[in-house]
Amino acid sequence: MKVRQQSLNTAHNRDSRAYINNSFQAQHAVGSAPDSRPTSVGKTNSVDHLTAHKLLQIIGQPAIHLVLWDGSLVSTGVDKPFATLYFRDRAALYLLVLHPELHWGDLYTDGRVEVDGDLVGLLDAVYRGLYQQGNQGWLNRLNETVGHRKIRNTFRRAADNIHHHYDIGNDFYRLWLDEAAMQYTCAYYPDPAMTLEEAQLAKISHVSRKLQLKPGDRVVEAGCGWGGFALHMAKTHGVTVKAYNISHEQVSYAREKARTEGLSHLVEYVLDDYRNISGEFDVFVSVGMLEHVGTEYYPALGQVINRCLAAGGRGLIHSIGRNRPRPMNTWIERRIFPGAYPPALGEMMGIFETNKLSVLDIENLRLHYALTLRDWLQRFEQNADRVEEMMDERFVRAWRLYLSGSQAAFTSGQLQLFQLVFAREDDNDIPWSRAHQYAPPG
Amino acid sequence: MKVRQQSLNTAHNRDSRAYINNSFQAQHAVGSAPDSRPTSVGKTNSVDHLTAHKLLQIIGQPAIHLVLWDGSLVSTGVDKPFATLYFRDRAALYLLVLHPELHWGDLYTDGRVEVDGDLVGLLDAVYRGLYQQGNQGWLNRLNETVGHRKIRNTFRRAADNIHHHYDIGNDFYRLWLDEAAMQYTCAYYPDPAMTLEEAQLAKISHVSRKLQLKPGDRVVEAGCGWGGFALHMAKTHGVTVKAYNISHEQVSYAREKARTEGLSHLVEYVLDDYRNISGEFDVFVSVGMLEHVGTEYYPALGQVINRCLAAGGRGLIHSIGRNRPRPMNTWIERRIFPGAYPPALGEMMGIFETNKLSVLDIENLRLHYALTLRDWLQRFEQNADRVEEMMDERFVRAWRLYLSGSQAAFTSGQLQLFQLVFAREDDNDIPWSRAHQYAPPG
Repeated sequence: MKVRQQSLNTAHNRDSRAYINNSFQAQHAVGSAPDSRPTSVGKTNSVDHLTAHKLLQIIGQPAIHLVLWDGSLVSTGVDKPFATLYFRDRAALYLLVLHPELHWGDLYTDGRVEVDGDLVGLLDAVYRGLYQQGNQGWLNRLNETVGHRKIRNTFRRAADNIHHHYDIGNDFYRLWLDEAAMQYTCAYYPDPAMTLEEAQLAKISHVSRKLQLKPGDRVVEAGCGWGGFALHMAKTHGVTVKAYNISHEQVSYAREKARTEGLSHLVEYVLDDYRNISGEFDVFVSVGMLEHVGTEYYPALGQVINRCLAAGGRGLIHSIGRNRPRPMNTWIERRIFPGAYPPALGEMMGIFETNKLSVLDIENLRLHYALTLRDWLQRFEQNADRVEEMMDERFVRAWRLYLSGSQAAFTSGQLQLFQLVFAREDDNDIPWSRAHQYAPPG
Repeated sequence: MKVRQQSLNTAHNRDSRAYINNSFQAQHAVGSAPDSRPTSVGKTNSVDHLTAHKLLQIIGQPAIHLVLWDGSLVSTGVDKPFATLYFRDRAALYLLVLHPELHWGDLYTDGRVEVDGDLVGLLDAVYRGLYQQGNQGWLNRLNETVGHRKIRNTFRRAADNIHHHYDIGNDFYRLWLDEAAMQYTCAYYPDPAMTLEEAQLAKISHVSRKLQLKPGDRVVEAGCGWGGFALHMAKTHGVTVKAYNISHEQVSYAREKARTEGLSHLVEYVLDDYRNISGEFDVFVSVGMLEHVGTEYYPALGQVINRCLAAGGRGLIHSIGRNRPRPMNTWIERRIFPGAYPPALGEMMGIFETNKLSVLDIENLRLHYALTLRDWLQRFEQNADRVEEMMDERFVRAWRLYLSGSQAAFTSGQLQLFQLVFAREDDNDIPWSRAHQYAPPG
């Protein structure tokens, strides 16, 4: 089934972005419109206005308005902007022009830059403007080299990184993830009209089919989140699962859930690094962990797989990726996901090429992550007041930006989502086709 | 559907290699059994026997017999060998031990080494022995570095290379390829009991579904062989095709066929290099050409795609590949396919990463090529006398070895077959899932 989505290519035109009853358009109303009254940091001058025009040029002249700190308007001449960007002080404007990728996140989080209108659409347009049209510009070359730290996820560093993001609090994540399995990874919408709950179950089912799970299979899961996928595999397919994770909060939650559901005899949660996986397994699966591994450790990950996979074993890795190697967005890597790096397919091959493993099947689910993020963002906005009570206003702004920016990164093609199936390279007991992935149930 | 093929993992045991009524076992009877009488090049000595034992060790101790030039037998002690290797002179033995990959092909072609029994099984065992067990050995390191020439397929060189292989004569290829479309590329056996004719049609259908061909689509085909796929696309899907090829013989044949079938208004065959493709197209497709391109020209190929693909365009590349970068088999590259190189997936990314293209789907059809080669080899052997009349005895031996060795390379995991679907990276009008590839017809 092919759904018309040409609308996604014209993010500037908000009216054209709806299709069926399920669109990528920002469905959240940002809590309250930004204050449009001038702030008292001095009048703008002609250099400020030139700089603001330069900014519009850098980001590809989207149909937006800029409002500077004294209330003056800068635009490309468009009457009905799909978003308005408010600058609260002069430094915010100049920092953004100097290095948009580095400063945008903090300026937005601090409320020094605010957005009224379609935040996802604005970010989609900016990404397209910055990277599709202007890949050769000095600003982008600067972005590629400045502000990126070398990622080296040792055991200790990996634990700190994961704690930073995943131990924020299960109550927070529960507000906007799916209820059934608390999956914080890309869902699968074979029918784009699916709800988030349906699509997360469809993802579990899609991955299980790709792995051809059968009763008695010994499964190892590297990076198991809140454990929902492991429980589901045990319940639905009669497999045993040993699931690794270095997030304390997630493992506590998962163990409690397994006890409640009476599945502790089938699913064991291990609070340990993927590099310490031990035992022999028929199936290796990792959904949403590779982003935290770092390319330097891909051969080591491949060795772990090689060591633990029984003869006739098979595996699947599900990860955010790129169309080509590029540094992680600086702000996301610093503030949201320390140590994270979404690899290009060529980089992912570092796992397999050195370890006598053979890649059988790769699927790119980019637009499915855009839909997942749309749904998360909608729930997040519905609960924004609760989140602000739990955390604070800056946290809400930072996460709004992170979720919106991620959605825009998937709609604009900056990020991909790869599911990759593999087996030992000398195994001939592999499926003849992929028809089993699409066979009707039963 | 998952077919039991554990037999493929036990190539040494000929009896276990059958499954259903369709197995990988060598179904050809080699024309006549080698002459087992001693030849008159002197008695063997103890060093000869040690060397022969060393050879058995290098190739992983398969259950075979070696018979030396004076009729003496060397074996691992097995009673019933699945193959017997006859050495006609001393130099043949020593050349083979020194550099098996370099000398084996010529020695076999010249009749200085002969094989009685299961040639494909022998080669499968040797490949597994050489590369799976002994990857670290000095002989393999030598193989990697000695005897490989740098491949640089300029326009002129590419034309010479293609002439060498594809212009041998259409009458020769007609003897053993499928009748309907003369496809000299991997077929697709979703049901392994299919005939070659059925599987080649299934391949065309599979590729067409992946490309979502619709009436009026403008298709460009890079490397069109004898033109059968282009004709089929035009006939079945109502598309127009501009098909490029630098083999004179193939293009003449294809043009004649298009005239005969009254399809010349839909299909244009162009005798030119893929680098000269001009025009705008909705679909780019290339089946079995990439092996002749050379990694150095992958970015150039990507540029061609980028230049000719209309907005909303999509493409597919079908190519032999590897699990990791490795030089081409020396003998094949020198004698059979000059300039050929099957890339690893990471190398293939050179086409896309530099050209704003996004990989959507990759499928590995390794075992389908093993079945294809089994079927080609069977027909080739049925027509071996005719081939010998057309060419000569050495040609028959060389091609027997090439087809058998290729089958063994696919069964043993030395070679892969990748089908890769891509689109422009900013295109959101892409399929939501791959279910359309497996939907029932109609």
